Amino acid sequence: MLLCDIGNTYLHFFCRGKIWKERANSITKKNPEIPIYYISVSKKNEKKLLESHNKCVNIEKLLKLDTIYQGLGIDRKAACLAIQNGTIVDAGSAITIDIMQSGIHLGGYILPGLASYKQLFSAIDALRMEFNFDISLVSLPQNTRDAISFGCIKSIILTIQNVAKDDCIYFTGGDGKFLSRFFDKSVYDNTLVFKGMSKVLQNNLKGSL
Amino acid sequence: MLLCDIGNTYLHFFCRGKIWKERANSITKKNPEIPIYYISVSKKNEKKLLESHNKCVNIEKLLKLDTIYQGLGIDRKAACLAIQNGTIVDAGSAITIDIMQSGIHLGGYILPGLASYKQLFSAIDALRMEFNFDISLVSLPQNTRDAISFGCIKSIILTIQNVAKDDCIYFTGGDGKFLSRFFDKSVYDNTLVFKGMSKVLQNNLKGSL
Repeated sequence: MLLCDIGNTYLHFFCRGKIWKERANSITKKNPEIPIYYISVSKKNEKKLLESHNKCVNIEKLLKLDTIYQGLGIDRKAACLAIQNGTIVDAGSAITIDIMQSGIHLGGYILPGLASYKQLFSAIDALRMEFNFDISLVSLPQNTRDAISFGCIKSIILTIQNVAKDDCIYFTGGDGKFLSRFFDKSVYDNTLVFKGMSKVLQNNLKGSL
Repeated sequence: MLLCDIGNTYLHFFCRGKIWKERANSITKKNPEIPIYYISVSKKNEKKLLESHNKCVNIEKLLKLDTIYQGLGIDRKAACLAIQNGTIVDAGSAITIDIMQSGIHLGGYILPGLASYKQLFSAIDALRMEFNFDISLVSLPQNTRDAISFGCIKSIILTIQNVAKDDCIYFTGGDGKFLSRFFDKSVYDNTLVFKGMSKVLQNNLKGSL
């Protein structure tokens, strides 16, 4: 089964436990006999996938999450569907944090992504510098580079901690691995979105395939 | 005594308990007999002040703060000098947080300003919206607008709380009033920078004037 998660920058593919990303303008040819089951947050990139492959199936409508949240992105929904209990953190261009309890989505919130924080500070002359990712979050910073790194990383960590409490935290996305190391009870899994998609597909395609 | 704090956007003036701001390109004429004691983080705007008034005295060198922090902005230094014990939060285009203990600066860190957070999200189509400043920070958000408001405000609050602990928190700057209402043990004082400048001037000018 070939799965695809179409984002604003990349198309992420998943097949037999393997995950890889491709740019919308250089999608490689896939076996035309194999259907691509996909979700998308980008109309433009979705069009590119449809042009590159004949058998594409948008499975958005199959992803039913028990929630009262209005406007939850389809990729967030997929990641949440993979987890029964816990906090899900998708750390990409934005960082989304969602809480699942007994298969029910309790709500969630959004922080800027690490790259956005960096970009933001780069607009201020005196603060235009690289982050220090080895910063201590215990002792107070004593220079500007540490001060902006500490501020951003600590504010992200504290906010996740505050909401997750003692839950297990499931990290995914480009900066998920980095952030997961600040938490004892955490799992990094860059296939979380695809696990949710697979779960839904398996439930729905039983019998019909 | 006329004081001026020259920032990147505005020049803030202070005289006899009154505070006001002016743009660098439209500085009003001041009494030419009165010296303006100033600090500046903007060479460009400093030049404008010097062009507009003959008697200007940069008091940067008088502001001596006991700290090992490298590269502390002169306005941060002035605000810190106003406080013996406590946490100082200057919430402007960036949010700086500094800790003072017995007149010694223990360190500090930097977060993006509220306006920067908004600007940051506006880069992502789906997240381009106004903040909800009346957001509850207790219950989990159930829509995108609340999700980005909750993320930003809560991450700022938690990070200040974590470092300040039981200290009194002194807020200043454009968003200081808004942020101060999330803390019981807090003071909002938009003259903090000028209080530090006055203190230093009073100590240094004794006898010499």
